[in-house]
Amino acid sequence: MKLGNIIVGQSGGPTSVINSSLAGVFQAAKELGAPKIYGMKNGIEGLLNEQYIDMREYLKGDMEVEILKRTPSAFLGSCRFKLPTVDKSPETYDRIIEVLRKLDIKHFFYIGGNDSMDTIKQLSEYAAAKNITDITFMGVPKTIDNDLAVTDHTPGYGSAAKYIGTTIKELSRDAVVQLIDIVTIVEIMGRNAGWLAAAAALAKGEDCEGADLIYLPETVFDIDKFLAKVEDIHKTKKQVLVAVSEGIKVADGSYVCEAAAANKAVDSFGHKTLGGTASTLAGIIADKFGWKTRPIEFSTIQRCASHIGSLTDVNEAFLVGGQVVKAAAEGETGKVGIYVRVSNKPYMMNTDIYDVNAIANVEKTVPKEWIINDGTYLSQEAIDYMSPLIQGEVCPYMVNGLPKHIKL
Amino acid sequence: MKLGNIIVGQSGGPTSVINSSLAGVFQAAKELGAPKIYGMKNGIEGLLNEQYIDMREYLKGDMEVEILKRTPSAFLGSCRFKLPTVDKSPETYDRIIEVLRKLDIKHFFYIGGNDSMDTIKQLSEYAAAKNITDITFMGVPKTIDNDLAVTDHTPGYGSAAKYIGTTIKELSRDAVVQLIDIVTIVEIMGRNAGWLAAAAALAKGEDCEGADLIYLPETVFDIDKFLAKVEDIHKTKKQVLVAVSEGIKVADGSYVCEAAAANKAVDSFGHKTLGGTASTLAGIIADKFGWKTRPIEFSTIQRCASHIGSLTDVNEAFLVGGQVVKAAAEGETGKVGIYVRVSNKPYMMNTDIYDVNAIANVEKTVPKEWIINDGTYLSQEAIDYMSPLIQGEVCPYMVNGLPKHIKL
Repeated sequence: MKLGNIIVGQSGGPTSVINSSLAGVFQAAKELGAPKIYGMKNGIEGLLNEQYIDMREYLKGDMEVEILKRTPSAFLGSCRFKLPTVDKSPETYDRIIEVLRKLDIKHFFYIGGNDSMDTIKQLSEYAAAKNITDITFMGVPKTIDNDLAVTDHTPGYGSAAKYIGTTIKELSRDAVVQLIDIVTIVEIMGRNAGWLAAAAALAKGEDCEGADLIYLPETVFDIDKFLAKVEDIHKTKKQVLVAVSEGIKVADGSYVCEAAAANKAVDSFGHKTLGGTASTLAGIIADKFGWKTRPIEFSTIQRCASHIGSLTDVNEAFLVGGQVVKAAAEGETGKVGIYVRVSNKPYMMNTDIYDVNAIANVEKTVPKEWIINDGTYLSQEAIDYMSPLIQGEVCPYMVNGLPKHIKL
Repeated sequence: MKLGNIIVGQSGGPTSVINSSLAGVFQAAKELGAPKIYGMKNGIEGLLNEQYIDMREYLKGDMEVEILKRTPSAFLGSCRFKLPTVDKSPETYDRIIEVLRKLDIKHFFYIGGNDSMDTIKQLSEYAAAKNITDITFMGVPKTIDNDLAVTDHTPGYGSAAKYIGTTIKELSRDAVVQLIDIVTIVEIMGRNAGWLAAAAALAKGEDCEGADLIYLPETVFDIDKFLAKVEDIHKTKKQVLVAVSEGIKVADGSYVCEAAAANKAVDSFGHKTLGGTASTLAGIIADKFGWKTRPIEFSTIQRCASHIGSLTDVNEAFLVGGQVVKAAAEGETGKVGIYVRVSNKPYMMNTDIYDVNAIANVEKTVPKEWIINDGTYLSQEAIDYMSPLIQGEVCPYMVNGLPKHIKL
């Protein structure tokens, strides 16, 4: 079958491989004969303003496609636009269809996380309700957070996990060289799901002790128990390395920095505007034990460090982009690309598509049984799940000593 | 000529290539026939306690040497031990000589920065005064800060600069994707010398706008002028990227966070314990303009990110380690390895040795004439100086998806 014109957009926070999925959509659309391959600038927000590009003008040869696969963040630009429901803003939907009609679009693709999958859900439902049968709406998953339901894992997670594992190894080497007491606290992204912080467990191996403690938001964080653990580890080693999700919360559900601010004993460290979780905990430890502390936030670096991207992740992201285009060409709509793990050892993975309703607005967290040692580490099962996702390296194209990117 | 027994130590803050210099010392000592090659554990501090290893036991084959070259931080452990002067503590010097005699050491090598070169200066002067002519004391330079005198640049700087250039490029891509106002402020190491922050200028190229503003400690930082610059840039682009040295200071010599704390208008952002330079500036900008801000500290990551190490840096660090051993074998003492740039285009570099007195305790800062645009950017001459130092990639040996290291 042949495709009609397509348009593709990117949405939400950047990852190292969202552009690899874009490359996969582009390549499959080209190979399946799409006359026009448009890209929305800044997602739906740009589309509403008729901001789009003809992707063939930017990706003239295979070399450009390869550079795109190696470029972090969203080539087309992104947005944080939450589509209002149809009853609240029917004109928004009318406008989207109007623009799509103007470009004679037959297939609409949106690469993103939970919110973006909701966009696909709304649009496909609207199309069904209005009996618009000649435009399909399909989602391509994307998020470093790995918190999408149904899919085995998400495109972007493997590369972020590889960055985290690599950097924890390097920081571990860095921390142990001095003869002083030092507690390094690394803060890793993840508000409600601890998948990224869990990746700190990958650093442990025959050449590295890795993180001593890993805290995820899936379990309640107890500051006193944490201090006791650190003190205990310190008895046998002077350098302690802790990895924490930014989203860890104490028993009443408040974030650690909020809890610290509310506690008179530690309020000098609880400046909410400035204090992240790592800073707050570092302050409490310095205060209580008098040891040197080093809070480190991976911040947005962890989601765009494509120079240490996972080849598995980049290839899978490309593949699932193509999978969704192929499904659209076969007439599917209201579906999202997913990963299905066929086997763990050896690692074998298939792509497939799935009903968007099962995925949109659902958040998948780390299974409780994978969190062990009184909420301070990850089980072997968790490590076996994560490990295949960081295998292989994407060699960036280095020009003048730095990775080459492509931009609009 | 043949070498006698040697001992080598590492000191000060880690870099990505201090182990490559160690490998260079080891390899040259082996090739020049040293019967025993000892490594001090944790530098002078360990030596005083007779803590050392026989390096041949750890580096059994060429493969181990190659892994050592790819392992960040100090394989032997480091220390921050400032050698007291002879008149203050003659017993320290007697003790060092006693331990060296016990091991029949003929050549002492110390890899480090300013303080470590002072150690070499003191020890070689002491040996001369005591007429100890059968032990040589030689220094191997090391510091990411690039602030050593005489040498064209320092081992470790190129890899840190490559990390900084790479990450600024990636963060630049990350920042521009949304349609919102955002000011990203990246804080880079460097208390008095701005060499590392200067490397942010390398990110600019045909595929990247790079940092909009770069501030070094070599010029006085004016908060009001900074705010005016940011406001001005924001008129033409919504996303502004600023790189600052951690050591930037206002007119009275106080650090930015101290100055902000002293200023009533901004005191809610001046919490000294928590606020770094980037956090402080981000707070001031958020307060004044209401834009989203993102302070990012490269922290210790920038000095140990050997996975994106510069091949030029690793090779030169190895070479200068060997150069110093060769010079010691020829009878030199009280000298330090240096780099001499023979030519910039094409880049050609020699190693040599130089009198430690000219190097110890001297701090080299970025030439004022290289800092342009009213103290907000680097000249082409500066870029031409830095660019050769980040060329080439060291491929880490990847095992299970992560870089392989070697540890004691």
